[in-house]
Amino acid sequence: MKISELSARSGVALPTVKYYLREGLLMAGEPTSATGAQYGDDHIRRLGLIRALSGAGLSIPRIRAILDLVSATDLSEFERIGRAIAQLPPHVDNDPVHEFPRAQKVLEFLGQVYDPRYVAVAHLEQALIGLEGAGLTLSEERLRAYGEHIRGIAEVEIDLMPLGSTEEAVRYAVLGTAMYEPVLTALRRLAHQDLGSAKFTSPAEHTTNRMKEN
Amino acid sequence: MKISELSARSGVALPTVKYYLREGLLMAGEPTSATGAQYGDDHIRRLGLIRALSGAGLSIPRIRAILDLVSATDLSEFERIGRAIAQLPPHVDNDPVHEFPRAQKVLEFLGQVYDPRYVAVAHLEQALIGLEGAGLTLSEERLRAYGEHIRGIAEVEIDLMPLGSTEEAVRYAVLGTAMYEPVLTALRRLAHQDLGSAKFTSPAEHTTNRMKEN
Repeated sequence: MKISELSARSGVALPTVKYYLREGLLMAGEPTSATGAQYGDDHIRRLGLIRALSGAGLSIPRIRAILDLVSATDLSEFERIGRAIAQLPPHVDNDPVHEFPRAQKVLEFLGQVYDPRYVAVAHLEQALIGLEGAGLTLSEERLRAYGEHIRGIAEVEIDLMPLGSTEEAVRYAVLGTAMYEPVLTALRRLAHQDLGSAKFTSPAEHTTNRMKEN
Repeated sequence: MKISELSARSGVALPTVKYYLREGLLMAGEPTSATGAQYGDDHIRRLGLIRALSGAGLSIPRIRAILDLVSATDLSEFERIGRAIAQLPPHVDNDPVHEFPRAQKVLEFLGQVYDPRYVAVAHLEQALIGLEGAGLTLSEERLRAYGEHIRGIAEVEIDLMPLGSTEEAVRYAVLGTAMYEPVLTALRRLAHQDLGSAKFTSPAEHTTNRMKEN
């Protein structure tokens, strides 16, 4: 198809398609003349991926890094997916120390590998420092429940991962990590509300409220 | 104690303590002279709460709204806690429609109350719209796992809620909602990495990678 049809079929405006071509995010088409080129379904899929990554709040350089990883066949698929996910926010400053003692303790408790090169280890350390600052604790009871249930969620997510091309796998891993996160966050708050309303509106509580209102 | 000692014991700088007094976030002390006043443990606790809320990224007007709710005895404790949590980001524009069909469907599937006044219902709707835009789905299998495991997490969190004063309960609910969220998000990414490394480094995969490298 011509570039105009590519734009129409992908739903990406023509100037944007040309911009992605110039930036190298979209691979060039098959040349048909000095100025024309033919595009195929690969281009439509790639445009869909670029648009989705952009919709997830990623900048052009970070999208480029992810697309480069899709075709980085010198790395294992696991390594490519891990590095692609590391492009997602929150971004962590390069710390010369590279030690995350709080995260290490938590991961050892959960029986998981502690590898300080994983960006999420730095995220966990930051989150644990935030807890301390707010005077909150991560008791063993809480951590055991977190570890068990988060693992249950992650297992279903890994099981549902498509096993076709690396592009599909990277797409699922990056977008899935980013886009299901707010779903889980909202569900947690709604579960609190659901459980809290049952807890706080026991018959005794009803009476107390009525007494307060009078 | 005098205001200078309050500052020293709470770790909040004296000009900041005075600012909180002027803004009404910190209640006035017991006057002892035309210019002096006495402060107590209530003031230290209040300063700790203000500092923690501020550390969670809340603005002064939102901190004031939460503190007002602590003492709003005309509302039930459940109502006060719910409204206090609604001060947390993400903030949703007032939508004149107030209908959240995607969130409603999800909540009905999970057997939870659908109440469009809950801010988290709008969060869920937004997250579900984001999924659609990225071409991702929320299958029944995934949603069942999410619902079950998030409820498990929320149950432990509600169980651990302190039942002393409303101030303590609001503190736990608001800070707990905000500060454990990034812990859970980081743990999810680490669980993916843990499960993924096992999945991607099966003996067959090892061979494939070695073949690619050669």
